[in-house]
Amino acid sequence: MSRKPTRDRGERQLIRRLQRLLTSETPASAAGVPFGDDMAALSSEDPRLLWTVDMLMDGVDFDSTRHAWAAIGRKALAVNLSDCAAMAAQPLAALCAVSLANTLTMKDAVQILRGAQKCAAAYGCAIVGGDTNSWDAPTVISISLAGHVPPDQTPVRRDGARSGDRIWVTGRIGGSILGRHLTFEPRIATALEINRRLGPHAMIDISDGLALDLARILEASGCGAVLDADRLDAAIHPDAERLAADDGQPARDHALHDGEDFELIAVLPQEAPASECEALGLLPIGRITAEDGLFLDTADGNLHPIPIRGWEHFR
Amino acid sequence: MSRKPTRDRGERQLIRRLQRLLTSETPASAAGVPFGDDMAALSSEDPRLLWTVDMLMDGVDFDSTRHAWAAIGRKALAVNLSDCAAMAAQPLAALCAVSLANTLTMKDAVQILRGAQKCAAAYGCAIVGGDTNSWDAPTVISISLAGHVPPDQTPVRRDGARSGDRIWVTGRIGGSILGRHLTFEPRIATALEINRRLGPHAMIDISDGLALDLARILEASGCGAVLDADRLDAAIHPDAERLAADDGQPARDHALHDGEDFELIAVLPQEAPASECEALGLLPIGRITAEDGLFLDTADGNLHPIPIRGWEHFR
Repeated sequence: MSRKPTRDRGERQLIRRLQRLLTSETPASAAGVPFGDDMAALSSEDPRLLWTVDMLMDGVDFDSTRHAWAAIGRKALAVNLSDCAAMAAQPLAALCAVSLANTLTMKDAVQILRGAQKCAAAYGCAIVGGDTNSWDAPTVISISLAGHVPPDQTPVRRDGARSGDRIWVTGRIGGSILGRHLTFEPRIATALEINRRLGPHAMIDISDGLALDLARILEASGCGAVLDADRLDAAIHPDAERLAADDGQPARDHALHDGEDFELIAVLPQEAPASECEALGLLPIGRITAEDGLFLDTADGNLHPIPIRGWEHFR
Repeated sequence: MSRKPTRDRGERQLIRRLQRLLTSETPASAAGVPFGDDMAALSSEDPRLLWTVDMLMDGVDFDSTRHAWAAIGRKALAVNLSDCAAMAAQPLAALCAVSLANTLTMKDAVQILRGAQKCAAAYGCAIVGGDTNSWDAPTVISISLAGHVPPDQTPVRRDGARSGDRIWVTGRIGGSILGRHLTFEPRIATALEINRRLGPHAMIDISDGLALDLARILEASGCGAVLDADRLDAAIHPDAERLAADDGQPARDHALHDGEDFELIAVLPQEAPASECEALGLLPIGRITAEDGLFLDTADGNLHPIPIRGWEHFR
């Protein structure tokens, strides 16, 4: 469940307003997880049972003139798996609703489903139902996915970060547009290990950019963060360097603001053993502070504010 | 989860092929309910926990030039509640994913959500999350809904009809286009009573027309049916009569083939007491037969085949 980077101020306002409207009227009984987290609690009977939905549109989240339908179907499923990872939930089952553009062939439609199905199966999840439609407009794919946090654990929310915590990412970031936004592997296994062994205080997946998604943790938790420039630079993906060489933007900006890395930001207690974190492939990038705001700590010893902005796909 | 009436043979084939593809690869563990029923089982741990999804598109399932956004939001939620009724499940929670046309105002968007929220609340259900997007194409609303069959009961599937069973509907049918396709009340309470007291063998909600939706029960159950012309005529809604007066089609055809009545077809054992059925507002329309096919039994004593076709909204 992500609110995608938005076009203008009006749209951001709209989304905030809709969210407030929902939050204010969601019964407390259903609110095992705060509204607006990566997944929602499904039933008050089982706080470990979560679900989420993502809607992907042609021309916005994928481009059917450039991407194969199987890769598009895979992405539609995988973005939901990434939400599961962000809560440390094991995926259970999915529903797939589509409005297929009338220009699609039967082969195209089957490819979408095959792509989604294959990805689901690889993570122990099945597509158990859906709704198939076609129309005279671009293709829309909406997948809902349910997951279960293991019996002895609790969902990892966004609102538990505390001053002094350390900020880690599950892999290198930036430049996903070069292909990883379609081929990324949702970090389910890593997330389950983090939750089992490291007592995480907060997690989120990077769908809209490191800065924007980290800011969501900071907002929900009521704190700030300082990223270490050297460590951040060590977490830059080679794709971000390649993109930087092309477009002249700093690779660090790509790492901070490109979306759709689908790595996790994990906020761990200071005492989480670095050796265990590194064994899981985690990369340290900074620390949580009591003061509001998101800053970059550079070699010159100064704190530079990091702008909070996301990246708009294909715009 | 409905497959909407389809435009041409190619599209029907596509939907059947996608369904086969899913059915063949859905693990048995997830298949507490056969694939393609009104709802799917969510988890093998709890066969009473079901979920469903419906995607509604502007110009196909609603017409934003004629219908108020609040009524459209209500419908997007209510069609899922009707799937709950068809399985005799009590709704629990919903997720609402939207791609809003860029022409919508903030007020329009809030009206969609308000309409859905108000309808959900009236049936004891909460919208607990979603995904909000906007784009340069018509509005799409996809709501996923989870429900729970009461502890001492089992979901009512489509595949349990047996020769000799009686066919009932929960209300008068036909002519929903005159307004009821937006204002219908999902038959949750009636469905729960039917399941608790009458031992139903099969149920489905009428989304695509009495004939087509009954045919789905017959296909899943491997049997046929004969409808009694006099009884069917007694179940024709005044809206169907009004429509017939306008368009010259027989009102009975409207009752058989108009979609979106969202009444239930309930197949009950022969021994279910008629007095109890009538107390629940059920109307008898026919009986299940061992022989395949769907026929109308007219006063002349002949059996007339009923064509299986659905009704296409706004086409």
